[in-house]
Amino acid sequence: MITAKGYAAQTPTTDLAPWNFERREVGPHDVQFDISFCGVCHSDLHQIKNEWFPGIFPMVPGHEIVGTVKKVGSHVTKFRVGDLAAVGCMVDSCRTCENCKDGLEQYCSNGNVGTYNGRGKDGLPTYGGYSNTIVVHEDFVLHVSDKLSLAAVAPLLCAGITTYSPLRHWRVGKGHKLAVLGLGGLGHMAVKFGVAFGAEVTVLSTSPEKEVDAKKLGAHKFVLTTDRAQTKNVKGYFNFILDTVSAPHDFKLYLSLLKTNGTHICVGIPPKPIEVPAFSLLDGRKRVSGSSIGGIAETQEMLDYCAEHNIVSDIELINIKDITQAYERMVKGDVRYRFVIDMATL
Amino acid sequence: MITAKGYAAQTPTTDLAPWNFERREVGPHDVQFDISFCGVCHSDLHQIKNEWFPGIFPMVPGHEIVGTVKKVGSHVTKFRVGDLAAVGCMVDSCRTCENCKDGLEQYCSNGNVGTYNGRGKDGLPTYGGYSNTIVVHEDFVLHVSDKLSLAAVAPLLCAGITTYSPLRHWRVGKGHKLAVLGLGGLGHMAVKFGVAFGAEVTVLSTSPEKEVDAKKLGAHKFVLTTDRAQTKNVKGYFNFILDTVSAPHDFKLYLSLLKTNGTHICVGIPPKPIEVPAFSLLDGRKRVSGSSIGGIAETQEMLDYCAEHNIVSDIELINIKDITQAYERMVKGDVRYRFVIDMATL
Repeated sequence: MITAKGYAAQTPTTDLAPWNFERREVGPHDVQFDISFCGVCHSDLHQIKNEWFPGIFPMVPGHEIVGTVKKVGSHVTKFRVGDLAAVGCMVDSCRTCENCKDGLEQYCSNGNVGTYNGRGKDGLPTYGGYSNTIVVHEDFVLHVSDKLSLAAVAPLLCAGITTYSPLRHWRVGKGHKLAVLGLGGLGHMAVKFGVAFGAEVTVLSTSPEKEVDAKKLGAHKFVLTTDRAQTKNVKGYFNFILDTVSAPHDFKLYLSLLKTNGTHICVGIPPKPIEVPAFSLLDGRKRVSGSSIGGIAETQEMLDYCAEHNIVSDIELINIKDITQAYERMVKGDVRYRFVIDMATL
Repeated sequence: MITAKGYAAQTPTTDLAPWNFERREVGPHDVQFDISFCGVCHSDLHQIKNEWFPGIFPMVPGHEIVGTVKKVGSHVTKFRVGDLAAVGCMVDSCRTCENCKDGLEQYCSNGNVGTYNGRGKDGLPTYGGYSNTIVVHEDFVLHVSDKLSLAAVAPLLCAGITTYSPLRHWRVGKGHKLAVLGLGGLGHMAVKFGVAFGAEVTVLSTSPEKEVDAKKLGAHKFVLTTDRAQTKNVKGYFNFILDTVSAPHDFKLYLSLLKTNGTHICVGIPPKPIEVPAFSLLDGRKRVSGSSIGGIAETQEMLDYCAEHNIVSDIELINIKDITQAYERMVKGDVRYRFVIDMATL
């Protein structure tokens, strides 16, 4: 076994703290890489606090992971020692179901293996990227260009692909009016991708102070949704709303901003079921859709696209010792736009 | 003015009763036709009882209207005296908005003019098909083939187009697994269209006694949704669910029956907002959509398709004097599958 160190929650009620643990030996198809940076996703906090489902403890969170390959298994063909490497939200899947065969491992019918808070095919818990090193089957390891800031690449592995994938799936681009609902970790990536794909991008937000940032990020318009006159102005205006908000919100209002045949895409996960008046769907043949991260091939496509178009996340680099304070600020929305842990501070 | 007679609700709390009223004179572009049959839609009852919005009283309901042309205006080119004719849920629209120009008058941005419980461009209330004659601009009058039973054609004008349109929009056909949720007036038409379009059709119902009928109507399969073993058997099975149910129901369950990228299409209108867990949308990139009737050109296309494929509604012909009892039976679901009023009984 490989000795690893990281930060873990021992129970759902304790803060993250240093923890030593073991990772499996590098198998024939495995890549081991030393972790340089790991992004901080809101779902890390949800999971260590058991807010979604009962978790596996101790839990080492983190699924926006980048680093440098340290060792490769005898059959590995895609990576060499010294390569940059990345891992996102999954480290394995059944590989045999229809979805896996279609490159949609995120929707694996038998359940993919989460990068942390999951169990591998060996039955052992998986531990995430708030740690110094990781061992993953090469099929779930991604290549990263050295053209980009490695720390700023980390959030692409979750916030990036979560917004890239639905925009590609729905073919959002030139001639489309895209609204991005919520300007946080996901929202700011959605703005960058929407602009890069050629759409007219409007940020919808309840925070007037986000307007300056929205424009800086490339958004063409900003609508303060607490201002009735501003929302009235965009009734029936958008082809797509990419909704990154995980707090409860008013679907009747947002659906009224869509054109006929418009699509409201949820990527955030509100704690309670969303409430949608049927009339809001029927009138204008609108739809509410969801999307979850992306498949492995599409994640690589996204990373390559980002390298080509010089797209990264806006980040604030932190010392791992400050993770609990970072969570507190994240919950308040006080981060522009993603905390990334410098793993050298471990 | 033209003297007309019909059945009207004088207030939201009184039963329908005979009422004499006036319709406008036949204008240059108008068609007057004498009504032979009018279908009974659940929305007739919702509207005379003010269950959706405050209505215009006295109200003459009915928007599944067929008959024979009695008089045409001087500029009418599409109809001649003696032609069969039909009118559905709309008798006018703005004709200038993007939706109208796209043949989507049902989504007219300025609000189309309902066949009843609406106001025409002259500001006067519209009165529906529970009456002996009607005057409508020729652009909103449809041609009906004499090959089909005229009484059984009437429900095509609402129940027919409401199910035909979304199945066409989503291109449901060969290779698709379609579930029809609820086997009533809309559901039984959805089965007929789904089968005609080449899909594998499964009826989902809470009533075991519907199985025999479902199969008679052409459905390939039947799933009793109150039986866990039966629903478990169709987890992740369907490409589409056409949901005709207007009572509250469990979207989490139904979404779990969809494949990845599956679409749940609502055409019924539950009284309260539908509740959809975000996870149910995100996991499998599913969507909940709505659809409302169809445009005029598409309604004509549907009627022509029905003539070609010998598709009509299963009906129970009633005397207009029995309308209140018919409503009582309709509310209990005791109709196979649409009441149609024989207007000769007026």
